[in-house]
Amino acid sequence: MYEGALQDLIDELGRLPGVGPKSAQRLAFHLLASDPVDVRRLAETMLVVKEKARFCSICGNVSEDEQCRICRDPRRDDAVICVVEEAKDVVAVERTREFRGRYHVLGGAISPMEGIGPDQLRIRELLARLNDSVVQEIILAMDPNIEGDATATYLRRMLDPMGLTVTRLASGLPVGGDLEYADEVTLGRAFAGRRAAQ
Amino acid sequence: MYEGALQDLIDELGRLPGVGPKSAQRLAFHLLASDPVDVRRLAETMLVVKEKARFCSICGNVSEDEQCRICRDPRRDDAVICVVEEAKDVVAVERTREFRGRYHVLGGAISPMEGIGPDQLRIRELLARLNDSVVQEIILAMDPNIEGDATATYLRRMLDPMGLTVTRLASGLPVGGDLEYADEVTLGRAFAGRRAAQ
Repeated sequence: MYEGALQDLIDELGRLPGVGPKSAQRLAFHLLASDPVDVRRLAETMLVVKEKARFCSICGNVSEDEQCRICRDPRRDDAVICVVEEAKDVVAVERTREFRGRYHVLGGAISPMEGIGPDQLRIRELLARLNDSVVQEIILAMDPNIEGDATATYLRRMLDPMGLTVTRLASGLPVGGDLEYADEVTLGRAFAGRRAAQ
Repeated sequence: MYEGALQDLIDELGRLPGVGPKSAQRLAFHLLASDPVDVRRLAETMLVVKEKARFCSICGNVSEDEQCRICRDPRRDDAVICVVEEAKDVVAVERTREFRGRYHVLGGAISPMEGIGPDQLRIRELLARLNDSVVQEIILAMDPNIEGDATATYLRRMLDPMGLTVTRLASGLPVGGDLEYADEVTLGRAFAGRRAAQ
């Protein structure tokens, strides 16, 4: 146990996800040895985020305005909506530069284990966007795991009668990966999704 | 890239030691989803530490007062000083409950690679404590690595002529470890330091 504030800081840091007691101690000593200006900037940035960050009223992405940057961008294609679980996923897809449509952030995935059903996700909001819109394709970009699959299946069944094209991201071997080390589910999906060699 | 403050926070968190880009993003989203009260408490604890924490004028340990808790404690044994590299090491030794003497924190170890020589360490302060004191034994509790060994050797040579008992912590196989997996230096030291079986 350290004296007073230092131990408080170690305790607070230790509550963060992925930060064990050793890391919390290392971080606390790092901050202790840091320039006070840097520490103040970190502390203030945390508070600013809490104050400013909100969710886009259209797509549910993180934003500092009523509508996020992507929903405000007139150059994006209104005909395609990519549905993702979390705001982090929007950033991941944007990084690929492969997609120029719009997004919809569900805020999670269906998970009976965690008590998350369709009503806890932003599915009503997605349907509302489809009512009077020019949307032709919905890309379901859920995580390739049980919860993601369940969510995608639920959405596909709901969207199918609406006459939209509903697609899912391809699942298979990661690029740069090693077939030998792929788990059997991934390898199985890579087989199921095989395409004509070019 | 996220919008505004959120990206700033990810950047700031990513500057902390051991926090990669993925962890920084995870931490930022955690803070974003946290209770504002919790975030404010974390931010304020950081600032309080920078404001309050100082170094004990006697031993160099982290303290919120002129003298640390251990130096102020009249029940500790003045005859033994345990010399350590960092304040973290004081906490590690205290945790064993094996030691009831005083401490001296050097603030690092001799490392020509990093340009740290004896003058950058609190060695003068250690000598000053020995001048008019009742100290009989100095325990050198440096890290069991090259820098720690160099520092311990330097201190032993300096302290030897003063007629004090100078000891070092035993080096050998870690308790609960596996002989088979011990590196050769550790195993070599365990042989060199072998004792009569009991």
